Amino acid sequence: MKSKFIVIEGLEGAGKTTARDCVAAVLRQHGVNELVMTREPGGTPLAETLRNLVKQGVDGELLTDKAELLMLYAARVQLVETVIKPALARGAWVLGDRHDLSSQAYQGGGRAIDPQLISTLRDTVLGDFRPDLTLYLDVTPEIGLSRARARGALDRIEQESLNFFIRTRARYLELAAADPTIKVIDATQDIASVTASLTHTMQQWLAEQAG
Amino acid sequence: MKSKFIVIEGLEGAGKTTARDCVAAVLRQHGVNELVMTREPGGTPLAETLRNLVKQGVDGELLTDKAELLMLYAARVQLVETVIKPALARGAWVLGDRHDLSSQAYQGGGRAIDPQLISTLRDTVLGDFRPDLTLYLDVTPEIGLSRARARGALDRIEQESLNFFIRTRARYLELAAADPTIKVIDATQDIASVTASLTHTMQQWLAEQAG
Repeated sequence: MKSKFIVIEGLEGAGKTTARDCVAAVLRQHGVNELVMTREPGGTPLAETLRNLVKQGVDGELLTDKAELLMLYAARVQLVETVIKPALARGAWVLGDRHDLSSQAYQGGGRAIDPQLISTLRDTVLGDFRPDLTLYLDVTPEIGLSRARARGALDRIEQESLNFFIRTRARYLELAAADPTIKVIDATQDIASVTASLTHTMQQWLAEQAG
Repeated sequence: MKSKFIVIEGLEGAGKTTARDCVAAVLRQHGVNELVMTREPGGTPLAETLRNLVKQGVDGELLTDKAELLMLYAARVQLVETVIKPALARGAWVLGDRHDLSSQAYQGGGRAIDPQLISTLRDTVLGDFRPDLTLYLDVTPEIGLSRARARGALDRIEQESLNFFIRTRARYLELAAADPTIKVIDATQDIASVTASLTHTMQQWLAEQAG
């Protein structure tokens, strides 16, 4: 099977790390030898530097929504061109912790930037590059944030209002409903049930790809 | 007269700093009380951080052309929204050391990124915000680079090949020919002559604006 780019998406505290380990296990069992793990924003020294700038800001300066969006796309295009595309080209599979859908949901939903502006930006810098599969772990913001808080201090994004995450989740669900490459996983369940759902979804999808 | 945004453009070593002092003197003589000086990329803590990333890179990582372009626009939109537009709104004049034309010339000409892509990006993030006047200091790359070298160590951009700067200058001249708000100043002359040209151009332009 041709190598694939699979992305895990969801709010803070949705369980993306656990899901990544589960999906990686399914892929290895499926015979995938080289699996490249990425996270966004980040994944290269430049992109990690931009991640820190977006998460922590500089000297308390208020980041404008558009500057934030452009920094996220700068990090993304750097990762796509120098890590993801070369990996896929040599036959490795890529498993991403977040990708473009995060910008559509957080910036388009949470920050209420015009979705058309974000789509134009995406098409302009990424062309038609898209993940083969996105697994969206759906939790309510209340559940996600209480899990994220239990992990420790919250960064600039995690400190946003509850309404920010309600808008972000609504946009995730709206985009998932319109795109058959996005599968929604109920991540409010306990870990064993989420893992079972993910495994089932992955096996079904892999069978479809092979068929 | 309504406050204006004036930009000085040109290759490295074109004499932008001397020109800025000259234009500032003309403006003060003209009765401009508050004059805000900006430089791009830069001018806010975030934008200066992005400037350093673009100029120095991170850990020797090769910056992709598109990541560089997006970082430049992130710095620009941050400066425009938090410094330039508020200054103009309160009646201050703004004098910029570089602005959007630099991206059109360096990234569109030097790096040969599709000019349409850059225009789309500009329109998407800046809308119809444009300088009222751009003074383009035209020098040959040979003259500009020899002046820049005399100043000291060259950064990542200044180390580009001569052909990079030949393409950049050609794009500057092409864009200037198509846009009446861009005035070309022959900056190969000695400082006294360049200053005289700038002063004459500024006085003529200010008279036109008032008339």
